[in-house]
Amino acid sequence: MQGKNITIRDVAKKAGVSISTVSRAFNKYEDISESTREHILKIAAELGYHPNIVAKSLSANRNYRMAIIVEDYMPDDYATYEIFMAFRSELSEQGYESIILSTTTDIQKVENLSKIPHEKQVDGVFILGLKMTDEYFKQLESFKYPCVLYDISIKNDLCSSVGVDNVKGAAKAVEHLIEQGHEKIAFINGHEDAQVSYERLDGYYLALARQGLLIDKNLVISGGFSFDGGKEAAVKLIGEHKEVTAIFCASDLMACGAMEGIKEMGLCIPEDIAVVGFDDINICEYVTPKLTTIRQERDKIGRTAALQLVEMINGKSPARSIIEPKLIVRESSVKIKK
Amino acid sequence: MQGKNITIRDVAKKAGVSISTVSRAFNKYEDISESTREHILKIAAELGYHPNIVAKSLSANRNYRMAIIVEDYMPDDYATYEIFMAFRSELSEQGYESIILSTTTDIQKVENLSKIPHEKQVDGVFILGLKMTDEYFKQLESFKYPCVLYDISIKNDLCSSVGVDNVKGAAKAVEHLIEQGHEKIAFINGHEDAQVSYERLDGYYLALARQGLLIDKNLVISGGFSFDGGKEAAVKLIGEHKEVTAIFCASDLMACGAMEGIKEMGLCIPEDIAVVGFDDINICEYVTPKLTTIRQERDKIGRTAALQLVEMINGKSPARSIIEPKLIVRESSVKIKK
Repeated sequence: MQGKNITIRDVAKKAGVSISTVSRAFNKYEDISESTREHILKIAAELGYHPNIVAKSLSANRNYRMAIIVEDYMPDDYATYEIFMAFRSELSEQGYESIILSTTTDIQKVENLSKIPHEKQVDGVFILGLKMTDEYFKQLESFKYPCVLYDISIKNDLCSSVGVDNVKGAAKAVEHLIEQGHEKIAFINGHEDAQVSYERLDGYYLALARQGLLIDKNLVISGGFSFDGGKEAAVKLIGEHKEVTAIFCASDLMACGAMEGIKEMGLCIPEDIAVVGFDDINICEYVTPKLTTIRQERDKIGRTAALQLVEMINGKSPARSIIEPKLIVRESSVKIKK
Repeated sequence: MQGKNITIRDVAKKAGVSISTVSRAFNKYEDISESTREHILKIAAELGYHPNIVAKSLSANRNYRMAIIVEDYMPDDYATYEIFMAFRSELSEQGYESIILSTTTDIQKVENLSKIPHEKQVDGVFILGLKMTDEYFKQLESFKYPCVLYDISIKNDLCSSVGVDNVKGAAKAVEHLIEQGHEKIAFINGHEDAQVSYERLDGYYLALARQGLLIDKNLVISGGFSFDGGKEAAVKLIGEHKEVTAIFCASDLMACGAMEGIKEMGLCIPEDIAVVGFDDINICEYVTPKLTTIRQERDKIGRTAALQLVEMINGKSPARSIIEPKLIVRESSVKIKK
């Protein structure tokens, strides 16, 4: 008697206990002694008992299922899908299923956050697009399930985070512009509710400071992470600061907006104003001129988040994974085209 | 003793049977008499016993969970995500969970397709991106679970389909070009493995025929649904057929490629060559000139698929849902800008 036809019933019989006791042993219930638990697990191993997926969810702690919580769908939000598909693919290789559980807006309507993983039968949660001002953000400090946050971190013994090195990425963008001969570089940042906005601002400061360039805080304004915000910010910056010859934007969408604004003012890119974005979304390749940017490797982000969850479930401490950002030089920042 | 704290244990105790028997009663196992089953269900109802989701999957026929099977992730494939998010949102309102179960490539490695819904505890499946040449496509004819196919249809009493009216959409695109004064309109079609390619070709023929315009089959070539394919096709068409003044493309991605090819030949859009795409993906708004296209309402597609699955589970016959395509006029097809 060995192999895949073995049921929980067989384990109970051989161990001389009830089915419920076997289930409780797998489930790590505290009302069962450690010696009984060990005895049962030993018998189960000897028989080659492999609980099926649903039986597993009832009997053991593991559901072999992870959830991802994403932002509400917004046009141009395809980047989330790329992260999810990488997350899904890695988890599938690890023997886990993955679901898009909710949006960050919907999940915040839930009163008791910690109930979610149990009710939805998931072992861990990967959360994208949370804002520092979200009520939910504070609740996560006492979240009792393995969790990975994207682009934001939190103090909790069960929360990991994954994100690109934003300081380094922003510094790379600005250093690239300095190398092209620019000194008066403006910065269109995202809104203040995102942790990345502060980090990218630090990267901007750092690159200028390293080269001994003057920092003018009037050249830093918010574009709110939107196309229109980027456009308005660019028009304002160029109108008020004739000395500006380059603009670094904290997102590609804002950079595309900025480019439209610059073109409508009758200026040329990169001859009059050079532009660099951040993210490397698909649009970069299709706009005219093609947009230089800092790539966030979304495939790596999704896979890393998946592995972090699996490792935490296997007992590893949470970690902060930093993905190396890459400068992708296209046409919007380099005067002499190859 | 009533309400949410009632467990299967309480039902078993009150009914005077084992926990396993309660589970088997809910699970409709045949080794339990109908009278015992009714007795147990009555007790359960009296106590207000509500099995949790996993218990439900073990015990009742419904999992309240639907799956979507998507194409492997490809750059620029964000449209799938928009459909999924609408599908997810509608199902959530209907009390169903939704998961991205697999990709069409992965699912085709599965030997017995019909086992999937049972093993994955889903009530129905929505499949996107299936090709007519896929082995899986034939297997679906005997698929035993409610299923909705996107952009492709099949004969099976449990399969619905949802898709845009491709004939009408293509005809609208070509009629728009005719209205702009074009008579020699080329067509860059997708590959032959997609049902939509045949339908869009029919729409192209129909619009020309209705206006009594000459149909020249040499003006129809394949761009394989890719950016590079569209670019090559446009360069070839214009090189070989100087009379062509407009190109209709069966996808926006091919249209963007065609526009790049046209611009590299030193020609102007729309002055020398007008271009119209199909899909209305996000890129249309960012390319120069902005791309005129036929919109597929992805929000509606996702929601319709969700409702079709729920209705089939509730006993309705499968249906073929046709979504009305919309002409979105931008800059690539209209000489006099507003």
